[in-house]
Amino acid sequence: MSQQLAKEISQRAAKAARAVATLSEADKNKVLQKMADAIRAHQDKIIEVNKKDLVAGKEKGLSDAMMDRLELTPERVEGMASAIEEIINLKDPVGDSYLLEERPNGLKIEKMRIPLGVIAMIYEARPNVTADAGALCFKSGNAVILRCGREAIESSKAIAEALHEALEQSGLPKDVITVVPTPDRELMTELLQQKDYIDLVIPRGGEGLIHYVSDTSKIPVIQHYKGVCHLYVDKDADLDKALAILLNGKTQRTGVCNALEGLLVHQDVADKFLPMAAKALGEKDVTIHADKRSVGYFDGADEIGDDQFGEEYLALEIAVRTVDDFDAALEHIQQFGSGHTEVIVTENDDTAKRFIREVDSAVTMANASSRFSDGGQLGLGAEIGISTSKLHAYGPMGLQALTTEKFVVTGNGQIRE
Amino acid sequence: MSQQLAKEISQRAAKAARAVATLSEADKNKVLQKMADAIRAHQDKIIEVNKKDLVAGKEKGLSDAMMDRLELTPERVEGMASAIEEIINLKDPVGDSYLLEERPNGLKIEKMRIPLGVIAMIYEARPNVTADAGALCFKSGNAVILRCGREAIESSKAIAEALHEALEQSGLPKDVITVVPTPDRELMTELLQQKDYIDLVIPRGGEGLIHYVSDTSKIPVIQHYKGVCHLYVDKDADLDKALAILLNGKTQRTGVCNALEGLLVHQDVADKFLPMAAKALGEKDVTIHADKRSVGYFDGADEIGDDQFGEEYLALEIAVRTVDDFDAALEHIQQFGSGHTEVIVTENDDTAKRFIREVDSAVTMANASSRFSDGGQLGLGAEIGISTSKLHAYGPMGLQALTTEKFVVTGNGQIRE
Repeated sequence: MSQQLAKEISQRAAKAARAVATLSEADKNKVLQKMADAIRAHQDKIIEVNKKDLVAGKEKGLSDAMMDRLELTPERVEGMASAIEEIINLKDPVGDSYLLEERPNGLKIEKMRIPLGVIAMIYEARPNVTADAGALCFKSGNAVILRCGREAIESSKAIAEALHEALEQSGLPKDVITVVPTPDRELMTELLQQKDYIDLVIPRGGEGLIHYVSDTSKIPVIQHYKGVCHLYVDKDADLDKALAILLNGKTQRTGVCNALEGLLVHQDVADKFLPMAAKALGEKDVTIHADKRSVGYFDGADEIGDDQFGEEYLALEIAVRTVDDFDAALEHIQQFGSGHTEVIVTENDDTAKRFIREVDSAVTMANASSRFSDGGQLGLGAEIGISTSKLHAYGPMGLQALTTEKFVVTGNGQIRE
Repeated sequence: MSQQLAKEISQRAAKAARAVATLSEADKNKVLQKMADAIRAHQDKIIEVNKKDLVAGKEKGLSDAMMDRLELTPERVEGMASAIEEIINLKDPVGDSYLLEERPNGLKIEKMRIPLGVIAMIYEARPNVTADAGALCFKSGNAVILRCGREAIESSKAIAEALHEALEQSGLPKDVITVVPTPDRELMTELLQQKDYIDLVIPRGGEGLIHYVSDTSKIPVIQHYKGVCHLYVDKDADLDKALAILLNGKTQRTGVCNALEGLLVHQDVADKFLPMAAKALGEKDVTIHADKRSVGYFDGADEIGDDQFGEEYLALEIAVRTVDDFDAALEHIQQFGSGHTEVIVTENDDTAKRFIREVDSAVTMANASSRFSDGGQLGLGAEIGISTSKLHAYGPMGLQALTTEKFVVTGNGQIRE
C-alpha cells in the first residue's frame, strides 16, 4: 500500500513539475508573494496546530534543542513569510542561456538552464523547512515532495495548507508542493525507489538519517554527513587574525557544521600562538584534545594519539596539533577533513593560493572564519542544503543547484555528412 | 577476496588522484604526448594481444558487430594515438575560477573548478575506450578505474601498459589509470560499493549493464539508457529541410542513440509531407509503424496503437504519428521521449523557441539533424559518455563534466558577528 501511495504522490508531483517548469519569473514571484501573505494570514492556525506537535513532543521527551527547533512563535511565522519574500528577490536561474560556440557548419550551440523536475526533501523536526524548501523549489521551477519527521508533521501540514491556498489562487496544482501524509519509514523507503518521477533527494538531519537515505535510495542523494572543519595557522600568519578566527570558529556557535573542530599550528609559530590560543580558549571553557607536541601549552588538556583526530564535537571542544610544515597540514586535512570547509591564516599570498588550490574541500578559505561557510554568507541567498560529495553540487546549495543545463542547437537545415 | 581487491584498487586510485589533481595543464599535456607516443611504439604488441581477444571472441561466437568493435588494426591503433593528441588540444577546465561576488564585509567569494577525483568506467567490448577514457580523465585531473568486459580485456591491458610506460617516464604512479585485472561480476559489484574512494561511475553498454550498475552502485552513476529521438515537423516547417533532416536522422547511421526513432507531423502539413516522407523512406527500405491517421500514406506500413510508440529500433524502422497541433507533439515527446535529443523543424521563430524552452531533453534542436547530438559535433571535443538523467550532467559529457566547482573565500581576518 505504501508502494502504491509513493508512486501516486511521485507521479502527481512529476505532472505538477511540468506546470511550473516554464512559468516566467514574474509569474513565480506573484505566487511567492501570495504564499508569504497566506502564511501570515494562517498564523494563528499554524501556531495552534504547532501546539499539538509541542505537546506530543513533550510527551515523547524530545530534547530541549529539538523542542526549540519545533516551536513556532508569531515571530517565527513572520520569519517564514519574510524568508519567502527574500526568495522573491533572488534571481531565477531558469532559462539563462549562453553560447558555447558557433560551429563551422553554422550550427549555434548554446546551453540553457532548466529545472531538475521533482525534488524530495527529507527532514526532521524543523517545520520552517516546509516553507523554505517549498519556496526555493518553486522559484527554481521544480515540484517538491516534503517528507517531514513525525515530530513536526502537523505543523508542516498546516504550513502547506497556506502554501496550497496560494497555489490554488494562482491556478496551479497543489501537487507542486506535497507534504507526505505520514512520517512512517516504509512510505519514505518507497518514495526513495521512485526514480522515474523524482530527480533528486536532499536529506537534512543526523548522520543516521543521511546514511539510511543514501543506502536505500535509487534516486541521486545530496550527501552531507558532517563538518569537521580545520583552521591551519601558517608560519606566516598574522597571529591576531588567527586568534580571532579561531575563537569565532569554535565559540560563536558550536552545534553547527561550519564550526571549527580542529586547529593545526605550524611548528615555527607554535611557541607564540599556542599560549595565546590556550588563554583565549580557556576563558571560553573550551575543552582541549591535543597531540604530544601541543598538549603542554594547555591547562588540563587531554593528550590524543595520531589516529584520534577527525572528531565532530559540535560542542566547546577542539583538537589541536602542531605540524612540521604546510605539507603536513595538508596531509592532516586530507586524512581527517570532511570536505566541508577548511581555513588557512597566512599573510603569504603564495601559500594561501597553494592551500586554496590543493585542499579538497567544498569551501576553502584564506583569512576568514569558517562560520561564513553557508549559503546566506556566501551570497547565494537562502540555502536548501549543503553537499559534501562532489557530484552535481559541492558546498552550500542555492537556487542554481536546483537546476541543470541542457544543450540547445539551432540550425537552418543542417544534416550530418 | 573480491572485496579486499576492490578496496585496494580504489584506495590506490584515490591516492593517485591526489598526484594528478594539481598538475599544471602544460605538465599534463607532456604526459599525454608520451601516452600517444607509447601507444604508437606498442602498436605491434597491442595488435598481437588483440588477436588473442579476437580468437577467443570467435570461439564464443560474438556477433559480427561486436567482433568489428573489438578488432584493432594499425589504423585503429594510430586512431587511438591521434585521439589522445586531440585531447591535448582541448582546454583543461581545472583551476578555472570566477568571481561570484564581493560581500559587503569585504570577503571575496569565487568558484574554482576542480577534478572529481576517481572515475570508474564500466564498458564492454571496445578496447579504444581504455585509451580515450584514460586520457580524458587524466586531462581533467582525475584518476580512472577501467573495468573492461571479458571480450576486450587482454587488448585493454596491452593498451594500459603503453599508458603506464608514459606515466612512469613522467614520475607519476601507474594507479592514475587502472585496468581492473579480471572482468568477473563479483569484483565489479565490490568496486561499486567503494563510495569512500570512487566519485563517479560511468557505464557504457547495453541497457542491461546500465540497469545492473545503477541498481548495484553505492556511488553516483551517469545514466544513459536509450535514445528515442523524435523529429516534429511543424505546420510552419520548410518541408524540404524537414525531409533532409528526417532522412539523415533515420538512415545515415541506424545503430546509434542519436538516430531518429519517431516522426511527428502537424496535421496541417501531413497531406503534403507524408507522401514525401513515404517516397524517400521507401527508397531507403525503412520499415514504417504508423498511427491510424498516417498509415494510409505508406505502402506496407504496419498500423500501431497509441501505446505502441516509444520503441528504440536501432534499425531502418521508424514510428510515424500525425498530431493535432504543437501541444500534442509536446505531449507525445513527454510521454515517449527518452530525454536524449528532440528536434523541431519550423520556420516560425516563436514556435522554435517554445519547443526549445518546453521540451525536456538533454539536447533540443531546431532545424538540424539529431545526428549532431554528440560531444564532437557539439564542440566538446571527445566525449566520455552521455547523461540522460539531469544530475551533474545532462547530455554529452566532455572534460568539464569530469570536474566540479568549489567555493573559494578570501578575506583579511573577517569573523562573523
